[in-house]
Amino acid sequence: MTERRYDPTADEWVTFATHRQDRMYKPPTDDCPLCPSRPGGRLTEVPRAAYEVVTFDNRFPSLSPQPPAPEVAGTELYPVAPAFGRCEVVVYSDDHHTTFADLPADRVRMLVDVWADRVAVLGATPGVSYVMPFENKGEVIGVTLAHPHGQIYAYPEVPPRPARELRAASAYRDRTGRCVECDVVAAEAAGPRCVLTAPTAIAFVPFWARFPYEVHVVPRAHRPDLGALGEQERADLSGLLHRLTRGYDRLFGFSLPYVMAVHGRPTDDERDWDPVSHLHVEFTPPHRSATRLKYLAGSELAGGAFLTDVAPERAAAALRGAMG
Amino acid sequence: MTERRYDPTADEWVTFATHRQDRMYKPPTDDCPLCPSRPGGRLTEVPRAAYEVVTFDNRFPSLSPQPPAPEVAGTELYPVAPAFGRCEVVVYSDDHHTTFADLPADRVRMLVDVWADRVAVLGATPGVSYVMPFENKGEVIGVTLAHPHGQIYAYPEVPPRPARELRAASAYRDRTGRCVECDVVAAEAAGPRCVLTAPTAIAFVPFWARFPYEVHVVPRAHRPDLGALGEQERADLSGLLHRLTRGYDRLFGFSLPYVMAVHGRPTDDERDWDPVSHLHVEFTPPHRSATRLKYLAGSELAGGAFLTDVAPERAAAALRGAMG
Repeated sequence: MTERRYDPTADEWVTFATHRQDRMYKPPTDDCPLCPSRPGGRLTEVPRAAYEVVTFDNRFPSLSPQPPAPEVAGTELYPVAPAFGRCEVVVYSDDHHTTFADLPADRVRMLVDVWADRVAVLGATPGVSYVMPFENKGEVIGVTLAHPHGQIYAYPEVPPRPARELRAASAYRDRTGRCVECDVVAAEAAGPRCVLTAPTAIAFVPFWARFPYEVHVVPRAHRPDLGALGEQERADLSGLLHRLTRGYDRLFGFSLPYVMAVHGRPTDDERDWDPVSHLHVEFTPPHRSATRLKYLAGSELAGGAFLTDVAPERAAAALRGAMG
Repeated sequence: MTERRYDPTADEWVTFATHRQDRMYKPPTDDCPLCPSRPGGRLTEVPRAAYEVVTFDNRFPSLSPQPPAPEVAGTELYPVAPAFGRCEVVVYSDDHHTTFADLPADRVRMLVDVWADRVAVLGATPGVSYVMPFENKGEVIGVTLAHPHGQIYAYPEVPPRPARELRAASAYRDRTGRCVECDVVAAEAAGPRCVLTAPTAIAFVPFWARFPYEVHVVPRAHRPDLGALGEQERADLSGLLHRLTRGYDRLFGFSLPYVMAVHGRPTDDERDWDPVSHLHVEFTPPHRSATRLKYLAGSELAGGAFLTDVAPERAAAALRGAMG
């Protein structure tokens, strides 16, 4: 069963993909589907003996270009829709035992180009409204394949969280005439929550960090998406992403799990999104200390109200000290 | 540092309570702060040798009646507010080694009255806009005290998730003239997702379940909150909650972790909430099978878009078979 179902009590779509129960779950290293194929030997999902960055369709996609018809019939109360979209895998390296932080700098720079390219291609597909590159890293996040990789989802509508941000940015712009993220960048560029700076981008712990060591990496100028970044801006963004992940690992003393996600402009034509879309990359590590996790429980899950017990200024100071 | 900070990029408040880093973390059983105090011996947070249900203020509250002034100065971009509200603990039993499911039936019935009473009292406090009883159960949810207990949070505004539900219910009512949850109950009362029924309440896996074994327990009649339930309705609601938790444990073969939350009417006077508030109790267990968890990662956390790989009809059938 692969379909999208509408939740009329929250005005949200939920995607069901029951074939994903069969997906690979922590395969042993010598059975990794993201490793190179051996000449004359095992064929993995990448039919090459060596590679730098590879993208391809997820074999167990939640959203696909030619989805089956929904199994249930929709009603006025419960609309249903095909699980249309695209789920891509982005393999960072042919080395099973590395991480985003441990890639060479030029590989991270290449990844930014790959993201920009795939966002442009997938976003131009009719019916795709939002494209989000992201990485889930670490077993505590539920990652089932250890080989360093990220994902790119192309959604048929703007997902709830970016939609909320765009609504807030629109309201802010109506009130002040300015972009809220531009104002945030101005407030954070030299303040106590700033972690890293480059000529065209900064990394900071948000004033309102929902996760203790949350960091946002944002271009200083108003750029709606990755494709709008110039050469220097891409270099600076990739440099900060790389330094940040290395600093995370240094501060915690181990390879820090996180969710990283790129939020940019929707790719539909519903309105001119440029004025209210300011590209940002969000890192949300689940750790609140080296030995403890921040769990999402009653207040966060059922209430949507985040409680945090680390001051953003303190997290930023600790991170600054580890950036090297 | 205890304060609320506004996120202008998402139009959300986040609560900071850094003293909570010091809260008790999985104390050994003989040091449990929720166990009875021993005569002439150790004094716990409950100064009684025996009790049924006890409620008291959380010693490490995120929200409190007399919060300190915020440490940072607010700005136009970043408003701040005191962390006003109330966090209560609800201890279910003086027996450290029991669970909600294993309580006697009359104790669960009593808990419904206790929730109704505390929601009324806390909701009448000036400045409190929403009161949510909930239970975080299990180490995988991050529970730090094993003694069976729940919590009640009194928030200074309607939290994002209930606010979203109320907006959806308002839009549905404007469109159809009806309560969306009343229509959901009518659709689920005898269908393939129904798990349990009683004369005045039902339990079902939602059509749009975000978690594989999510179950909602809802009064059949339009009741805005716990206080509006009559005697039979309270008995039926507590009976279904109890049977459901016992069935969960039976199906999985162990004491199933979950977040349980009661969503009812806001307690502020912003509008007449009665027509759009229909009481419901949500259970969201993190397990997608006995050995695997559903993790919230990129799509859910950064996108707000839930992906599920268990069909609600199948989860409901499995649950029905385990209800006894």
